[in-house]
Amino acid sequence: MSESVPHDLPIYRRIADGLRARILSGELRDGDRLPGENTLMSDYSIARATARQALAVLINEGLAVPKRGSGVYVRLFKPIRRHGSRRLSREQWGEGNAIWDADTRGRPFAVDEVEVVRERASDEVARVLDGAEVWVRRRRYSVDGRPVQLATSFFPAELVEDSAITTPETGPGGVYARLGDLGVAPAHFTEEVRARMPAPRESELLGLPGGTPVIVVARTAYTAGGRPVEYNEMVLDSAAYILQYDFDA
Amino acid sequence: MSESVPHDLPIYRRIADGLRARILSGELRDGDRLPGENTLMSDYSIARATARQALAVLINEGLAVPKRGSGVYVRLFKPIRRHGSRRLSREQWGEGNAIWDADTRGRPFAVDEVEVVRERASDEVARVLDGAEVWVRRRRYSVDGRPVQLATSFFPAELVEDSAITTPETGPGGVYARLGDLGVAPAHFTEEVRARMPAPRESELLGLPGGTPVIVVARTAYTAGGRPVEYNEMVLDSAAYILQYDFDA
Repeated sequence: MSESVPHDLPIYRRIADGLRARILSGELRDGDRLPGENTLMSDYSIARATARQALAVLINEGLAVPKRGSGVYVRLFKPIRRHGSRRLSREQWGEGNAIWDADTRGRPFAVDEVEVVRERASDEVARVLDGAEVWVRRRRYSVDGRPVQLATSFFPAELVEDSAITTPETGPGGVYARLGDLGVAPAHFTEEVRARMPAPRESELLGLPGGTPVIVVARTAYTAGGRPVEYNEMVLDSAAYILQYDFDA
Repeated sequence: MSESVPHDLPIYRRIADGLRARILSGELRDGDRLPGENTLMSDYSIARATARQALAVLINEGLAVPKRGSGVYVRLFKPIRRHGSRRLSREQWGEGNAIWDADTRGRPFAVDEVEVVRERASDEVARVLDGAEVWVRRRRYSVDGRPVQLATSFFPAELVEDSAITTPETGPGGVYARLGDLGVAPAHFTEEVRARMPAPRESELLGLPGGTPVIVVARTAYTAGGRPVEYNEMVLDSAAYILQYDFDA
């Protein structure tokens, strides 16, 4: 990309680009203090207003937050530790808990943009779920007021028809408890994890600053008998998540 | 970023940028045929040489491959399915197999840039391994001739001193079999998965085209008694990998 970046960008943007690169590369970490106005002024021989402009770029992008009287810090959003197996244990949803409680440990989270529709399955979903019609649940999750995940769940239509899975509110324990009510409780999960750059629509819904990749988790839930009962594609803001998986040798 | 991209880029670069964006967003997938020279000529009212130049950009970046007489395709590198638990099962390394055999299923892979050194641990590594001195194994893995992963393993120095772990060739079953010889066989693993943009050095070593994020897997191996015996940080070309994790409800 460097070839296509012109050298006549205003100095405040070049400084912001440099700081952003250090944040995105991991050199500057969450909670680190950015160089202050005085440091930028002397390092680059610029006026205070220009230094302030450079920091404002990162603040506007959500990559940094000012703390009154102390400086500007790499944004203090504490990553969500998403624990692959514990969060999906039967104890969790079997007792009527939301799976999200396991992820956020008491931090406030919200679900919005909920859409529940019956659709014809895409080829990929039809292959996984072995059916042509699906109920689809689309929603966006926010933690501490910040959108962090888009999730789209697919269920075989004939299986969940007339259940609460086809309504916005699924009740205690959520969709997995409802699948249990239908006699097809999930017993095994497979998660496929990828990373890529976001599509424009994903950037918009997640409010991602430029240069932030997404993690895509595609999970299939199977009954004890091996029947696939849900396919869930989750798109995660990579800056907001650590995925943890524990297993034995 | 779009603000910083000048509008006077040559047309072949703008076409290449558009195609690249469609590949990186997942709209065009591995193995898909790119628009041909004739299509580009009529869509953009350009000469054949210009259409060829646009496609050449993606070929040079390793994002596409020409097939004689058939067109240009999104690069046909088959993603490596890295199976979180199966690959690290005791059966695997206990029988003297390389863990990589489980990943690549017979595809040719190579290890280069091997470096084995004794170092003072960083604060992070010292915290995980509970020790100030470590043996470090750095290497790069390639599959089908393409670099796909950088891996850096850390071992408590006093534990592995004088073992084959401190030499480039570790013998059948690799470092885990050698830890077994030392009476500290790994029994539990924790993997933390993140995604981010690569640092310049990582881009260079992995030959990443612009706009390709990396997946970072940080694994800690523990003995049955809970003693940490290895910390391994792996940086994966996100375009080359699918990580799979299976678990029960």
